[in-house]
Amino acid sequence: MLSKINPSELWLPGISVDCVIFGFHENQLKVLLLKFIKSPVWALPGGFVGLEEDVDQAAARVLYERTGLTDIFLEQFYTFGDLARNYRATEEHRDVNTAMGRSEDEVSWLSKRYITIGYYALVDYSKVVVNPGDISDKAEWVDVASLPKLFLDHNRIVIKALDSLRKSLDEKLIAFELLAETFTMSELQVVYETILGKRLVRTNFQRKILSLDILDRIEKKYSGGAHKAPYLYRLKP
Amino acid sequence: MLSKINPSELWLPGISVDCVIFGFHENQLKVLLLKFIKSPVWALPGGFVGLEEDVDQAAARVLYERTGLTDIFLEQFYTFGDLARNYRATEEHRDVNTAMGRSEDEVSWLSKRYITIGYYALVDYSKVVVNPGDISDKAEWVDVASLPKLFLDHNRIVIKALDSLRKSLDEKLIAFELLAETFTMSELQVVYETILGKRLVRTNFQRKILSLDILDRIEKKYSGGAHKAPYLYRLKP
Repeated sequence: MLSKINPSELWLPGISVDCVIFGFHENQLKVLLLKFIKSPVWALPGGFVGLEEDVDQAAARVLYERTGLTDIFLEQFYTFGDLARNYRATEEHRDVNTAMGRSEDEVSWLSKRYITIGYYALVDYSKVVVNPGDISDKAEWVDVASLPKLFLDHNRIVIKALDSLRKSLDEKLIAFELLAETFTMSELQVVYETILGKRLVRTNFQRKILSLDILDRIEKKYSGGAHKAPYLYRLKP
Repeated sequence: MLSKINPSELWLPGISVDCVIFGFHENQLKVLLLKFIKSPVWALPGGFVGLEEDVDQAAARVLYERTGLTDIFLEQFYTFGDLARNYRATEEHRDVNTAMGRSEDEVSWLSKRYITIGYYALVDYSKVVVNPGDISDKAEWVDVASLPKLFLDHNRIVIKALDSLRKSLDEKLIAFELLAETFTMSELQVVYETILGKRLVRTNFQRKILSLDILDRIEKKYSGGAHKAPYLYRLKP
């Protein structure tokens, strides 16, 4: 991607965006990780900011390029700008560059402090077809509770994103972004519990959610043991 | 400041920090503004990020340089990186540069998009001695409810800072940062009301604050009409 044109003709220097893409699957809150080509190092999906691109657009582009998704919940949560974010200083950086066979130009472009603007996204796991992209050869959804050691400070970035997600859970009703269009009350409760990392009392949870008056209850369909089938809900239009 | 050394030997390119410094005075929430030298344009206190400085350190340095304060509440809240943050594109930029008699080198250094990392600070108004700095000739505390049109997108930056401050009010108990060491319950309530932009019920407010068990009540001192004097409180150590 960077081999033919001088990177400085395309991108802002020293700035990147990193996306913490949360998906929900099998009662786990997962994060999309990419492995650098020919390297054992895993990292968050990220990219540079185009000279003619807002930083929000850069984050949306990265998200689209890796997941094929548009129009989804994507929010800036924090900017990481410590001196230590200098790729040059890390063993990983040397390893990754060597493994990827990067040119001198590319290595020099990357060999400085990068200030990265963190965004988090919530996606319906079932709709994502992951494209690892040019610099990765593998993508994986990993439980936030058992992340490996990631590139540079990416573990800290995930922790900070999760912290922001928790704080926004009630205010922005974003848990619904992780669910399919229709869901049961207990599916919704599991999403809340998983994000918050704690159990909630069923009756209190239901009362709170229903009091918000944001859900439509869908007519029950016959489904075998019909009298046991839970109600399905969806967000009001 | 920038006239003798090439700015790129000191600072990261295209990055700045801006500080929304809140102070509380005469029942108003105020923001510290600076006026550019020989120009009618007002702006937030801001600065560049040194090559050997974390972005948090840069924000703390700007705050110290303008207010003389250290060890105060200072929190990153948002990063502004739209294409439109290009100083070159604004009338204001030309006016400010002309008025300040900036050199070609300085103007060229400044003539690009700047991504700015926003921080907000809460200070005890009575402790601040403002130093306008090299590029300003006037400083003023202005009520957030009646700001003039500020440089570039600085009005939006203040609005976003106020929004973050409101969200953090309960979680971080930061209202106390705006008060002197000892205060009455009604002084505290006025700070909350002013930040939130709404009236609160006195009894509910007192009950809520006292239930947090964070305040020490100080012994009343005789003060003339002693039976009417309100209790003084301070934060527990």
